[in-house]
Amino acid sequence: MKILLVGASGCIGSAVAAELSVRHELITAGRTSGDVTMDLSDKDTIEAAYKEVGSLDAVVCAAGNVTFKPLAEMTAADYAVGLNDKLMGQVNLVLIGRKFVADGGSFTLTGGVLDDDPIVEGTSASMVNGALNAFALSASIELERDLRVNVVSPGVITEALEDYAPYFRGFEPVPAARAALAYAKSVEGKRTGQVFRVS
Amino acid sequence: MKILLVGASGCIGSAVAAELSVRHELITAGRTSGDVTMDLSDKDTIEAAYKEVGSLDAVVCAAGNVTFKPLAEMTAADYAVGLNDKLMGQVNLVLIGRKFVADGGSFTLTGGVLDDDPIVEGTSASMVNGALNAFALSASIELERDLRVNVVSPGVITEALEDYAPYFRGFEPVPAARAALAYAKSVEGKRTGQVFRVS
Repeated sequence: MKILLVGASGCIGSAVAAELSVRHELITAGRTSGDVTMDLSDKDTIEAAYKEVGSLDAVVCAAGNVTFKPLAEMTAADYAVGLNDKLMGQVNLVLIGRKFVADGGSFTLTGGVLDDDPIVEGTSASMVNGALNAFALSASIELERDLRVNVVSPGVITEALEDYAPYFRGFEPVPAARAALAYAKSVEGKRTGQVFRVS
Repeated sequence: MKILLVGASGCIGSAVAAELSVRHELITAGRTSGDVTMDLSDKDTIEAAYKEVGSLDAVVCAAGNVTFKPLAEMTAADYAVGLNDKLMGQVNLVLIGRKFVADGGSFTLTGGVLDDDPIVEGTSASMVNGALNAFALSASIELERDLRVNVVSPGVITEALEDYAPYFRGFEPVPAARAALAYAKSVEGKRTGQVFRVS
């Protein structure tokens, strides 16, 4: 398959690349690096990247920004970061990508454990993850040409603990390579409308 | 209790008013009618309404707009309607209302069944409802002074079937008075971070 991997240089993205590249042709995308560049919060850059890449069999997104901050300090502008980037960036990957992905192809988005196992300072991430899960389920019943959409929802990644450990005390970390299996299941399997939880 | 009821003139709101008004003092709010007016999509009007009302024991919101349209026709601007109004309008009711609600007081928001039982043309509603559920869960662990936040998630309301029946074939309708009980449970009980599903 020819697969567009957004966020290929990140912690999860590089593990997904390692998992998928042995069997598939990967086109990597990132904000500043990769075969093509795109900014998830700017849909014009998403459209431009798709046009540059041409037809595809699958799209995987392992990128998306949200703001972590105490609820008491969160403003509508702070929530807008996550809504515009991690949520609508990934939704726009589906809306725009529908025209570029072959029959039976798939979109695999990244959510996270916080929608049902929240942490302090994580309300924006929780909100965005809950929105993504419900979007994938509902979009899956409307996508044409057997197109599929799933969300992978990983727990805190072992390789990212250096940055995130204080926020995720008591969470069992997930090696990135283990999370990457769920992306392969989504891309190479046939299920749709699923949240593949890896935690 | 002194309770601010947003969307008091709507189908669910009027049933909530009937349920709560026999035991509590209600301050009604709506876009164009009520004791105070507010536009959920404009946080300045939310702040102005709170200032006009003063201290409160509970806030109930039974309002919020989303766009219903086939996925193939949905644009980022269509999703923005639901994100700005039903989602962030209700989130802003919590963020701003924290300063006006008494210790132990509650926020009761309205979601809906579509986050886990989707319909065609409902991707925006699904997304927003999933976001609200996860927000309430995560915000509940950070709210100070024993403040509480819950979501009521009703199915299609019997009294609204005239408009919505074609979209909700096979869904068992919920009388508005039955949905209203869940709002009373949220306001007059002590639970927090819950999604009270009435379907």
